[in-house]
Amino acid sequence: MSSRPIITLLTDFGLADAYVGSMKGVIASLAPEANVIDISHEVPPGDLLRGGMVWAAATPCFPRGTVHVAVIDPEVGGDRRILALQAKGALYLAPDNGLIGYVLERSDIRRAVHVARESCYREPVSPTFHGRDIFAPVAAKLATGLPLDQLGPEVTDCRLSTIPQPERSVRPGCVEERGEVVYIDRFGNATTNLRPLAGLRLEELAVRKTRLGSLRKTYSEVGRGEPLVIVGSTGYLEVAVNEGRAADTLGLAVGGEVLARWGEG
Amino acid sequence: MSSRPIITLLTDFGLADAYVGSMKGVIASLAPEANVIDISHEVPPGDLLRGGMVWAAATPCFPRGTVHVAVIDPEVGGDRRILALQAKGALYLAPDNGLIGYVLERSDIRRAVHVARESCYREPVSPTFHGRDIFAPVAAKLATGLPLDQLGPEVTDCRLSTIPQPERSVRPGCVEERGEVVYIDRFGNATTNLRPLAGLRLEELAVRKTRLGSLRKTYSEVGRGEPLVIVGSTGYLEVAVNEGRAADTLGLAVGGEVLARWGEG
Amino acid sequence: MSSRPIITLLTDFGLADAYVGSMKGVIASLAPEANVIDISHEVPPGDLLRGGMVWAAATPCFPRGTVHVAVIDPEVGGDRRILALQAKGALYLAPDNGLIGYVLERSDIRRAVHVARESCYREPVSPTFHGRDIFAPVAAKLATGLPLDQLGPEVTDCRLSTIPQPERSVRPGCVEERGEVVYIDRFGNATTNLRPLAGLRLEELAVRKTRLGSLRKTYSEVGRGEPLVIVGSTGYLEVAVNEGRAADTLGLAVGGEVLARWGEG
Repeated sequence: MSSRPIITLLTDFGLADAYVGSMKGVIASLAPEANVIDISHEVPPGDLLRGGMVWAAATPCFPRGTVHVAVIDPEVGGDRRILALQAKGALYLAPDNGLIGYVLERSDIRRAVHVARESCYREPVSPTFHGRDIFAPVAAKLATGLPLDQLGPEVTDCRLSTIPQPERSVRPGCVEERGEVVYIDRFGNATTNLRPLAGLRLEELAVRKTRLGSLRKTYSEVGRGEPLVIVGSTGYLEVAVNEGRAADTLGLAVGGEVLARWGEG
Repeated sequence: MSSRPIITLLTDFGLADAYVGSMKGVIASLAPEANVIDISHEVPPGDLLRGGMVWAAATPCFPRGTVHVAVIDPEVGGDRRILALQAKGALYLAPDNGLIGYVLERSDIRRAVHVARESCYREPVSPTFHGRDIFAPVAAKLATGLPLDQLGPEVTDCRLSTIPQPERSVRPGCVEERGEVVYIDRFGNATTNLRPLAGLRLEELAVRKTRLGSLRKTYSEVGRGEPLVIVGSTGYLEVAVNEGRAADTLGLAVGGEVLARWGEG
Repeated sequence: MSSRPIITLLTDFGLADAYVGSMKGVIASLAPEANVIDISHEVPPGDLLRGGMVWAAATPCFPRGTVHVAVIDPEVGGDRRILALQAKGALYLAPDNGLIGYVLERSDIRRAVHVARESCYREPVSPTFHGRDIFAPVAAKLATGLPLDQLGPEVTDCRLSTIPQPERSVRPGCVEERGEVVYIDRFGNATTNLRPLAGLRLEELAVRKTRLGSLRKTYSEVGRGEPLVIVGSTGYLEVAVNEGRAADTLGLAVGGEVLARWGEG
């Protein structure tokens, strides 16, 4: 592990306004040696599921000791708390709106505090921009070694949203699942909430009018422009089109139903 | 203050072309220890007002000694000068097209020079890309300690645009202002050119067909989807919709009229 | 040259998904001192010509020793190789799909290897995300000094695409060229595949219905809104409109024909 602390940023601020630059200015003022790395700022405003999926995909790639900051915070300025958590060898800072649940399970959390100590804030705190005035200075302080319990009182009841769970029916030699599309990426690949089932073989995956056969290992196992189902880079089943855009070709959208039938290998 | 110099970049170059990467390559060649931080590259081409608003919002968040570079420069290659200024404990580098006025007042400026010394440029200078060939190398040299007066002759007549000023009429116990929308952000919030008036209470703010009452402290003081007026994170009155998009809901655009009536507290 | 290694990234991943952040997390884990600089992530999916033009424009601005990584890789997971090359005082890492040819000529290449040694990969390797699992860890290892020949066997037959070459007809005192538009930038400027011809004067450049006269030195040599032809910042002839958008005004698109007539100076 490097002696140079890492802070990652995930927001729905976009890159056109001054919001991200302002947060980085505050961090540079308080933790000049920190290596600030963008995960994404293009989460659609307030989209917790999409933000959570991006956070869950990227954070495991970072080294131990990283401070992961997420500001997707439609209730900014209201009653919602800001939480700092220690888990999985890293620190997490996010509003208590469920976002953390996409990344952490309750059993992962070693310690969680409500970030309530105002001496850790930038003064005065704007009620509309806690990213600059609370998240950024607190992240800088965590990155430079401030212990979690200096930020505020311990909490045990944080909100932990999760991606929707598929329904599953099990019969001898056969498992059927009813899941859904949970993410569409830039390439039009559709991530589902289904994972490979150990010891079973995917017999069919049905999305809208398309019926796909067995799980492929690479895009190029099917012809150019042909659809397939594959285990995506985050471990979920993904519907793709070789060198094409599955979402457009097959008419897929987040929330759309996906039916899987598994048989014995 | 850190020993690692900071250079911030604000441009209208976007992130799809090679322009920003080229500037960063030149800076990395000449000032390898500099911490280069993006404010934004998504200013619409040539939009000095929007660029100036973003620059004014972000630059105060950075530490003393930062070198702030802005390249929104529709007259690149023409007669306009490039200026380097010392002000507010930081250095500013920008074309002399008024942009600096959104950030600095004449009284802030300790020293201003015309960046004319060609030995500080990257050779040969492309007439269409001063960002790479003049702004980047000069920023690197400033960040590594080159004194301002080594860049060219002192100037005293730089252009300083400002956001449009509201009209104000004062009567006993009542102030009326005619201002305008000057910025719409990613969330559809509309920043005006009006600020809170000390000792007075906002009685009404009218934009298009909407009449808003007193100033709110947080978005959540009104119902979800309801409009409000609040002091935004840069200190100006902002028209917003709680968990919604004011610009879309209320039909607001930059330049649109805003009428405020203030009374005694 | 700095002791802090530089890694540049060019991808078609966009900034909305977790892909770029994931790559940066892997690099930060393995080469914490590396300075990771984005060239662009907004290359349209699979667009090798556009990606190659951006790579060719930006890479020459970086210092010797830089590791340049490009992941525009529609055949990811298939049979295409990943190559690491030493050339022009820097290292290049890219799929063997021709992309490298926009930046390097065969004669530039000092050494090229097929990145085949799996102990340099992140395990397990996702068949759909070699950016995270092969390109990022290999870039980190190159930046921290791993010799090229530790990555896999030397190769001599890599694919090198180039921008389309113009047709040229030479007569006494006159050269005529038939070229094309190869790039449109954010400002609507249209880069062609034609370069200035030493000792000759551009008499006419014709694009669609527009006939442009001699080569200009700056945009401002013509009136606002008027078209011109100029040598762009990468050395190719560029069709522009002073403070306007040539591509829109003149109806230009990548692939469109450009006819040039050169005479004796």
